[in-house]
Amino acid sequence: MSDGQPLVVGIDVGGTKVLAVETDREGRVLRTARGETPGRLVDASLVEDVLSAALAEVADGRPVSAVGLAAAGFVDAAGERVRFAPHLPWRDDAVRARLADRWGTTVALDNDANCVARAEASYGAAQGVASALVVTLGTGIGGAIVLDGVVLRGHNGMAGEFGHMQVVPDGQPCECGRRGCWEQYCSGNELVRIVRGELGRMPTILDELCDGDPARLTGPMVSLAAEQGDLLARRAFGSVGDWLGVGVANLVAAFDPEAVVVGGGVSAAGDRLLDPARSALTRALVGSGHRDVPPLVRARFGPEAGAVGAADLARSLL
Amino acid sequence: MSDGQPLVVGIDVGGTKVLAVETDREGRVLRTARGETPGRLVDASLVEDVLSAALAEVADGRPVSAVGLAAAGFVDAAGERVRFAPHLPWRDDAVRARLADRWGTTVALDNDANCVARAEASYGAAQGVASALVVTLGTGIGGAIVLDGVVLRGHNGMAGEFGHMQVVPDGQPCECGRRGCWEQYCSGNELVRIVRGELGRMPTILDELCDGDPARLTGPMVSLAAEQGDLLARRAFGSVGDWLGVGVANLVAAFDPEAVVVGGGVSAAGDRLLDPARSALTRALVGSGHRDVPPLVRARFGPEAGAVGAADLARSLL
Repeated sequence: MSDGQPLVVGIDVGGTKVLAVETDREGRVLRTARGETPGRLVDASLVEDVLSAALAEVADGRPVSAVGLAAAGFVDAAGERVRFAPHLPWRDDAVRARLADRWGTTVALDNDANCVARAEASYGAAQGVASALVVTLGTGIGGAIVLDGVVLRGHNGMAGEFGHMQVVPDGQPCECGRRGCWEQYCSGNELVRIVRGELGRMPTILDELCDGDPARLTGPMVSLAAEQGDLLARRAFGSVGDWLGVGVANLVAAFDPEAVVVGGGVSAAGDRLLDPARSALTRALVGSGHRDVPPLVRARFGPEAGAVGAADLARSLL
Repeated sequence: MSDGQPLVVGIDVGGTKVLAVETDREGRVLRTARGETPGRLVDASLVEDVLSAALAEVADGRPVSAVGLAAAGFVDAAGERVRFAPHLPWRDDAVRARLADRWGTTVALDNDANCVARAEASYGAAQGVASALVVTLGTGIGGAIVLDGVVLRGHNGMAGEFGHMQVVPDGQPCECGRRGCWEQYCSGNELVRIVRGELGRMPTILDELCDGDPARLTGPMVSLAAEQGDLLARRAFGSVGDWLGVGVANLVAAFDPEAVVVGGGVSAAGDRLLDPARSALTRALVGSGHRDVPPLVRARFGPEAGAVGAADLARSLL
C-alpha cells in the first residue's frame, strides 16, 4: 500500500504445496510465500491455517484488499464452494465465505487450473489465442479450456478436469476412487513413483537426495536430479512427458485448439518434459499429417500461474 | 418444387452407407434414398457415383436448388476439402467444388457429426441447450461440440474427432493408423466384431441371419437380433454401450456439458445402447456424486440426423 495500490494476494493451494503471491496490475509477482499442504486426511482447518500463514507472510502487516484462492479441486460455478478435491480435505464446503470471514477481506475462489488459464490468457502464453487448452501438472493434472480469452466453466463449473479422463482400463487406482486416470501416468506423483520403483536397481543421485529413504522422495528432487543429468530421473520425465503428449493428443482430437499451454509445478522442467510430449503428440494425434499440430508451450508464469491468476480474479472484484 | 419451395437435399456419406433426404424448412424429411459406400480402397469417383444415384432418386427429375454433403471424415474449416477420411477414399480432395460442377448446383460440405449437431441444435435434442456434446456412432465414431447453438469448428475445422481418442494403450489397430482408438471399442464395426468372434460358440439367430457366413454379418443384423432377444447380440450392445459411457465420461470430465446427444446408425438401438452407457457414465465420471450428470439422450433424427443437418446447411446458402 506504500505506493497507493491495493494489496492483492493470490494463493494457490495444491495437493502438496501452498504458494501465495502479491501481484501488480500487469500480473507481475512482487512478493511470494510458501507452505506445505497438510494433505487430504486432515481437518480442513489445518489447511486453512497454512493459507493464513502464507497470506500473513506476504502481507507483512499491510492491510489486504482482496485474496484470490486457486484450489486443486472442483469449485462450483458460483465460486463459493469446493465440491470435491481428491488431494485436499474440503468436501462440499463453503470455503470462500469462511475464509472471507476469517481474513476480514474480499475473497474469490476458483479451480486452480482455471486460475492458471486466466493468468495465461490475460498476460501469458494464451494471450491473443482464439482457442487454447491449458494443462497443469502438479501432484495431479488440472486443466482449462479458453475460448476467445474466456475460461469455459461448464454446466457445473467443472469443465477442464482432464486428469480424470481414463487412459488405461483397470489401470492404476486414483485418489478419485476410479482407476486408470490420466494423472496416474502423468503428474508429479507419477514422477516420484517411477523413480521409487527403481531405487537400488540402478545408480542414481536420488539415493543421496532422499537420504536413502524412498518415502522422502519428492517431485522437485526428481527435477533436480534430471537437471544434473541423472539417468533415472530423466527416464521418469521421458515417461511422464510421453503420457502428457498422448493425453494432449486426445484433447486436441476433441477440441482442435490453436495452442496448448502446460503449467503447474512439473512444468518447471521445461523442454525436459515438453520435448517427449511434443513427439508423442505428433505420433498420437489423429490426422497429424493433414492438420496444424498445435504448439505445446510452457505457461509463462510456470509454477506461479495459478496464484497469479487467482490474484487477477480477486483484483477483478475491486 | 410443386409447392414453390426449393428442392434441398442432404446426403450423409458414411463408411458403409449413403443416405439422401429431401427436407422442408422445419427439418422434416420428405423423401429418402439409400446406397452403399464402396469403401475406402476404391477410386473416389465410385463413391461419387453412389452419391449421384441417391441424389437423382430423391430429385426424381425435379431441379435441385442445393445439396448438403455430410462426410465421415476431416473437412477443412472452409468446407471445401475432405482432408482425411479413415473409411472413405478422399485424401486432401476438393470434393465440394467437383460435386458442384458435376451436379450443376450449390453444394455445401461439412463433417458428418457437425451436420448431426446442426440438425439436433436447430430442431432436435440439443435445441435450447447451452452446451452439448454430440456423439455419432456408425461405422466409427464422430462427434461435435455445441456451445449456445453453434458448432465449435476448431482451429483446423477438426474439433469433435472423439472416435480417435486413445482409450487402450497398444489396443486394437485402427483405420487411422494408430491403436486403441475409442471407435475400436464402441461402433458398428465393433458390434459386428464381437458377435463374429463368438459365432459357433453359442446358439444365436445371427447364424441364420448371415446364412452361416460370418463375413456377411452387418451392424443392422446385430440390431435386429438384439431386438428379437438374441443373447449374443444383446451382449454386444452391452459392451459397446459400456464403452460409450466410459468415453462419454472422459468427454464430460473435459467439457462439463449440459447434455449429451447420441446419433448415428447404431443409435437406432435406443435404450439397448443407451442404458448400459448411462450406467457406465455415472460409474466412470469423476465427482459424479457431486455434480449433475448430464442426460444421455438419443438424437431426435436418429440415423437421419447427418443428412438432415447437411440439408439445413445447404438451405442456409440459398
